[in-house]
Amino acid sequence: MNLKALHKISYGLCVIGSRKGDRLNGQIANTVCQVCSEPPIIAVAINKKNLTHEFITASKVFTASVLAQDTSLSFIGHFGFKSGRDIDKLEGINYRIGETQAPVVTDNTLAYLEAKVIQQVDVETHTIFIGELVGADIIKEGEPMTYAYYHQVKRGTTPKTAPVYIEEEKGGGN
Amino acid sequence: MNLKALHKISYGLCVIGSRKGDRLNGQIANTVCQVCSEPPIIAVAINKKNLTHEFITASKVFTASVLAQDTSLSFIGHFGFKSGRDIDKLEGINYRIGETQAPVVTDNTLAYLEAKVIQQVDVETHTIFIGELVGADIIKEGEPMTYAYYHQVKRGTTPKTAPVYIEEEKGGGN
Repeated sequence: MNLKALHKISYGLCVIGSRKGDRLNGQIANTVCQVCSEPPIIAVAINKKNLTHEFITASKVFTASVLAQDTSLSFIGHFGFKSGRDIDKLEGINYRIGETQAPVVTDNTLAYLEAKVIQQVDVETHTIFIGELVGADIIKEGEPMTYAYYHQVKRGTTPKTAPVYIEEEKGGGN
Repeated sequence: MNLKALHKISYGLCVIGSRKGDRLNGQIANTVCQVCSEPPIIAVAINKKNLTHEFITASKVFTASVLAQDTSLSFIGHFGFKSGRDIDKLEGINYRIGETQAPVVTDNTLAYLEAKVIQQVDVETHTIFIGELVGADIIKEGEPMTYAYYHQVKRGTTPKTAPVYIEEEKGGGN
């Protein structure tokens, strides 16, 4: 079995916004996916170790900001390689409080989605949160940041907690 | 709510191979996604109306062939806009029988994945099949066909049964 085959799957990068009470957080995810059109339903896989997992489990809502291709590595690193347990990741970032009361990051964002969790599925290290769309809009036109572009052009890396992490890759950037 | 925001999510195109007894089938899906790395687990959302849904539900296995960017519209149309109820979609197509005994389409394929279903999740019109990886390999190097490329460059359309279909788009191509 050649696990590198998994690298040929295409993804985009999003910031997932979440809240728990009045605490807010954001993290990078590459697994946002529409799974039903009528009604519109999206899904995202989140590592159980992440603060975002705790927040979505508590509040049953999440947002997804689809990042533009020209997003800087440092912006992605801020949300992808730091923990909201250590810092307030939204400090100094432009965002607004959405329909769900969760933060919608607007910096580097082409479009955002907001969802209320209707099901959550336990899959080993991750939970798939399945949410009905309650808000969505386009913020600006442009090309989205794909995971392939992030890796090949930007030379970005992958944290160990990502569903697409494989051992040989040197995650990091903290 | 602006549903066009959903179009900013990035996807790749795969042929999903399935079987039921000795009947084989394939269909296009854009929702293949890795949801766990240890162990490697992938997910795919399939419309309940599709023959592939019946086949995966019966056999509990599926394959995914990641298509190359230079795949022709007619190849995608063959798997995406025709039904295995009407024709044998694998006739005249290069494929092999995989570890799962399901067909792995090798034409226009960069890499393939094979999975055994460990969970299935009912989401309105679709089922998310979650499968542990039991086979995977790279067939050739190249750029994968993204859904954006299929739409913008190839001018491809979307069938009504796809999770990403929205009303204003004219699906078709039969």
